[in-house]
Amino acid sequence: MLNDADDAFLSGLRETLPEAAFRETTELYTRESRDRWRGRGHVVAPGSAEEVAEVVRACAEARVPIVPFGGGTGLVGGQLSGEGAVPVILTLERMTRIREVRPEENVLIADGGAVLADIHSAAEEADRLFPLSLASEGTARIGGLLATNAGGLNVLRYGNARALCLGVEAVTAEGRVWHGLNRLRKDNTGYDLRDLIIGSEGTLGIITGAALRLFPRPAAYGTAMLAVPSPDAAVELLGMAGRRLGETISGFELMHRQGLDFLAETGPEVTPPFAETPDWMVLVEIGTPPGMAPDEALEELFAEAAEAELVTDGVIARSEAQRAALWSVRESIPEANRRIGSISSHDISVPISSIPDFIVEGGKRLGRLGNLRINCFGHLGDGNLHYNVFPARGESRDDHKDIRDEVKRTVHDLVHEMQGSVSAEHGVGRLKVDDLERYADPEKLRMMRAIKSALDPQGILNPGAVLAADQGQR
Amino acid sequence: MLNDADDAFLSGLRETLPEAAFRETTELYTRESRDRWRGRGHVVAPGSAEEVAEVVRACAEARVPIVPFGGGTGLVGGQLSGEGAVPVILTLERMTRIREVRPEENVLIADGGAVLADIHSAAEEADRLFPLSLASEGTARIGGLLATNAGGLNVLRYGNARALCLGVEAVTAEGRVWHGLNRLRKDNTGYDLRDLIIGSEGTLGIITGAALRLFPRPAAYGTAMLAVPSPDAAVELLGMAGRRLGETISGFELMHRQGLDFLAETGPEVTPPFAETPDWMVLVEIGTPPGMAPDEALEELFAEAAEAELVTDGVIARSEAQRAALWSVRESIPEANRRIGSISSHDISVPISSIPDFIVEGGKRLGRLGNLRINCFGHLGDGNLHYNVFPARGESRDDHKDIRDEVKRTVHDLVHEMQGSVSAEHGVGRLKVDDLERYADPEKLRMMRAIKSALDPQGILNPGAVLAADQGQR
Repeated sequence: MLNDADDAFLSGLRETLPEAAFRETTELYTRESRDRWRGRGHVVAPGSAEEVAEVVRACAEARVPIVPFGGGTGLVGGQLSGEGAVPVILTLERMTRIREVRPEENVLIADGGAVLADIHSAAEEADRLFPLSLASEGTARIGGLLATNAGGLNVLRYGNARALCLGVEAVTAEGRVWHGLNRLRKDNTGYDLRDLIIGSEGTLGIITGAALRLFPRPAAYGTAMLAVPSPDAAVELLGMAGRRLGETISGFELMHRQGLDFLAETGPEVTPPFAETPDWMVLVEIGTPPGMAPDEALEELFAEAAEAELVTDGVIARSEAQRAALWSVRESIPEANRRIGSISSHDISVPISSIPDFIVEGGKRLGRLGNLRINCFGHLGDGNLHYNVFPARGESRDDHKDIRDEVKRTVHDLVHEMQGSVSAEHGVGRLKVDDLERYADPEKLRMMRAIKSALDPQGILNPGAVLAADQGQR
Repeated sequence: MLNDADDAFLSGLRETLPEAAFRETTELYTRESRDRWRGRGHVVAPGSAEEVAEVVRACAEARVPIVPFGGGTGLVGGQLSGEGAVPVILTLERMTRIREVRPEENVLIADGGAVLADIHSAAEEADRLFPLSLASEGTARIGGLLATNAGGLNVLRYGNARALCLGVEAVTAEGRVWHGLNRLRKDNTGYDLRDLIIGSEGTLGIITGAALRLFPRPAAYGTAMLAVPSPDAAVELLGMAGRRLGETISGFELMHRQGLDFLAETGPEVTPPFAETPDWMVLVEIGTPPGMAPDEALEELFAEAAEAELVTDGVIARSEAQRAALWSVRESIPEANRRIGSISSHDISVPISSIPDFIVEGGKRLGRLGNLRINCFGHLGDGNLHYNVFPARGESRDDHKDIRDEVKRTVHDLVHEMQGSVSAEHGVGRLKVDDLERYADPEKLRMMRAIKSALDPQGILNPGAVLAADQGQR
C-alpha cells in the first residue's frame, strides 16, 4: 500500500529541497488537454538529477507515489493520476538546459526538461537536424518524449524517439542516479537498459538527461501532394518511392477526403490542394543531399507512378510557401477533429501491406454500429494510422456515448486480428492498461511485471500507468 | 547451485525429443576459433521453438545450465562454458528456415538458426537488402547475431543488429515461448523487451525467430580509398562527407599502414591501393538512389577535401573488380593480424571526436610497456576501432605473455577515461565479465543483476556470461 504525499511528508521534503522546487498545483498539471481526465497531487520541481534522486529517496522511504510530468501533452493519461494515494507530481521544468552540442560528433546532450523546440533551435544553430517532429514541440520535454518513445512525422526516415537517443541519465526507484549518458554509436557492454527505460512511461525510472543523435541537414526539401485512387495504390506508391528515392523520404502521410471535409466544415482554414478533393491523398516529403534535385526526383516519381496508374493527380510545391500550405492541410486535421468531436479515436498500426484490408474491413464493421464518419489519416510509411470515428453530420459525440466502448473494441479487435498494435505512438498510459492486458502476449506481460517488480518493488514510480497499480507487486 | 547435464538427465530428454535432436559434442561446439578457450557440454538441437521450450523446461526443473550456441563465431567466449556444472549446449542448427519474405513491407522473418548468408540471399531474391554485414556471414546465425547485437561494416548507415530487428520470438528461462514477432515499425504497447533480449547474450532468453528489416537496394555503389594526413583529418573528412553525401555513406573505415605492412609480411596477398602506402587511409563507400551518380559524388568530395587538405591522394573504384580489390585490403587485415599473432586485441569505441587523441595517447602509454606494434583500424564512422597490439618484428606473442594483462588494462583504462566502451561490438561474453564489473556504472550493474534475477531466478541461461555466474542470485 502506498501513502499520500501529506503535509508531514511535504514539510520533510521542504527541509532538503530549495523553496524554488515547490510549485502550486495548477490546472497545468492536473487537466488533460482534451479534458478527458483529471489528476491530482503536489507539484515538486527539482533543479538537478541529484535533487530528483533526493525526492525519489524521500518518496521511497515514505512509500509515496511519484507521477513524472513532462510537458503534459500525452494523450493516454500517463501524466495524470486521479486514483490511489495522492502523489508527488515531479516536473523537470527547472531542468531545461542544453548541456552540450557537439556537431562534429552529431550529438546533443540536454536536461530531461529541455523543450523539444529549444533542442531543434540548438541543433539548427550548429547546422544540424534533430528530426523528432510533432505538433506539441513547443511544450513537450525530451524526458517525456523519451519516456513515451514519441513518434511523429519523421519516423519513416529517422526512427522514433528511441532511435534518436544514444544514452540517458536516469533516477532509479531507489533514488540513485544512473549515469548512462553514452555518446557512442556502438557499445555492447551489458543489457540495453537505455531502451528499457525509454518507453517505460516513467514506471521504471525518471529520465533526467539524454544524449541525442543529430543529423546533417538535407541540402534541399521537396514536397508533393499526390491523389491516389485507393489505399492499395498508396501502399504500392510507397514501395515505388522507396526504390526511387531511398532514405531521402522523410514523410509519407495518407489522408482521406473526410479530413478535408472536416476542415471545410469547421476550420481551421486551409487552401485545398486540389480543385476537386480526391478520396485519398498522399503527402510525400523528401530531403536530399547536395547533387540531387528534389523537385526533379518527385516529378520522375510522379511520371512513373502515373504511368502505373498509382496516382491520378498531383501538386509539387514550387516554393517554401507552397510547401507550408501543403503541410498545413495535414497538420490542421487534428484540430478539425477536435472541433468535430470524435466518438472514439485510435492510434493504431498494422503491417503496411495489411493497411488496405484494414481500411475496408474497419469501415464494414463500424457500419454495423450506426451512421458514423471515419477520418483515417496518418503515417502510412510507418504503418501508423490515426483512425478516428465521428458521428454523422448534425449529431454530436454525446449522442453516441453508448456505443463508444463498442466502437473502440471493434477497432482494436480488428487491429489485433491483423497483428497490429493498439498504441502505435501514444503509449499505454492509464487509458490503455486494459487493452494491454487484453491484447498483449501473456509471456510479455509476465516478463514486464517481473521487471517492474525487480526495479521498483514498492511500485512508487507512476503507479497505474502501463501496468495496473498492483501488478508490480504480484 | 546448478547440476550437471548427466546421463539420467539426458535419458529423460531423449524421451521427449526426437533422435535427430541429439548431436555428438564435436570440437565445433567446444573450440573457440582462435583456440583461446575450450567449452564442454552435451549438444542438443531442437527442431522448433516448442522443442526449445521443452529443453528449457527440463533444464529448469533439473537446474541444469544451458549454453545457447549460434554459429560459434563469437570472439568473447559467450558460446563456450568451461566452468561450473556441465551444460546443455543448445544449437538452433536444425531451425534454419526463412519463414517469410515480404518485400512490400520490407520484412523478412527467419528461424533463429538461419545463417546470415542465407538471409542475404533471400533478401536479394526479393530485390531487397539485409544490411548486416560481417566476415562470418557464412556461419553466423541470426539468433546469435541478435543475442550479441552484432555490428559489422554497415552500422554507420543502417545501425547494428538491434536496429535491424522489428520483433523476436524467444523462449524464456521458464521454458515458455514469447511470441514477439512484430512486423510493425511503431508499437508503443509496454516495455521494450525486444531490445532487452537483443544483446543479452543468451542470458535472459533464447531467440528462436526474428522479424528483420529489409531495405531498398541502392541503385549504385561508389567506393574510394583516400589517403589522409592524420586521424584528425579523417574525422573532419567524416563530417564533410556527412554534409555532402548524407545517409548514402554506408562505410567509413580507417586503416593504418601497419595493417598493409602486415599484409605484405604474412599475406593474404592483396593489391596495395597506393604506390607508396600512406600512414593513414580511409575507405569510403556510398550507396546511392537512382538519379545520383556515385562516382561524381565521390570526386566532388575528393576535390573539396583536397582543397581543405584533408586528403593527399585517392583512388576511386571504376569497376566492380576495383571495388572488390579495395575492400579486400580492408577485409584481409583481420587474417593478417591472426597470422602475426596479437599480444592483446581490443574492440573499443570512443566518442568520434576523441579518436585522434585516443590514438596519440594510446601509442604513448603502450610505448612505455615495450617495443610494440599497434594495428589500429576499423569503423571510424561509428567511433569503433579494432586496436590490436603486436610484438616487434621477429618476436612472438608468447614472448610477451607477462605484459598481456597490462597492455589490456592500459588500453581499457584509457578508453574508460575517454568515456568509451571496452566492447563496442563483440559483447561481454565470458572474456569481459571482469571489465564490465570494473568499468560499468554501479547502478547499471545493479539493475542488470535485478533483471537477470527476475527473469532467470535459477540462473540457468548461459551462466557466467555477461554477469558472473552467481550474480543472478544476489
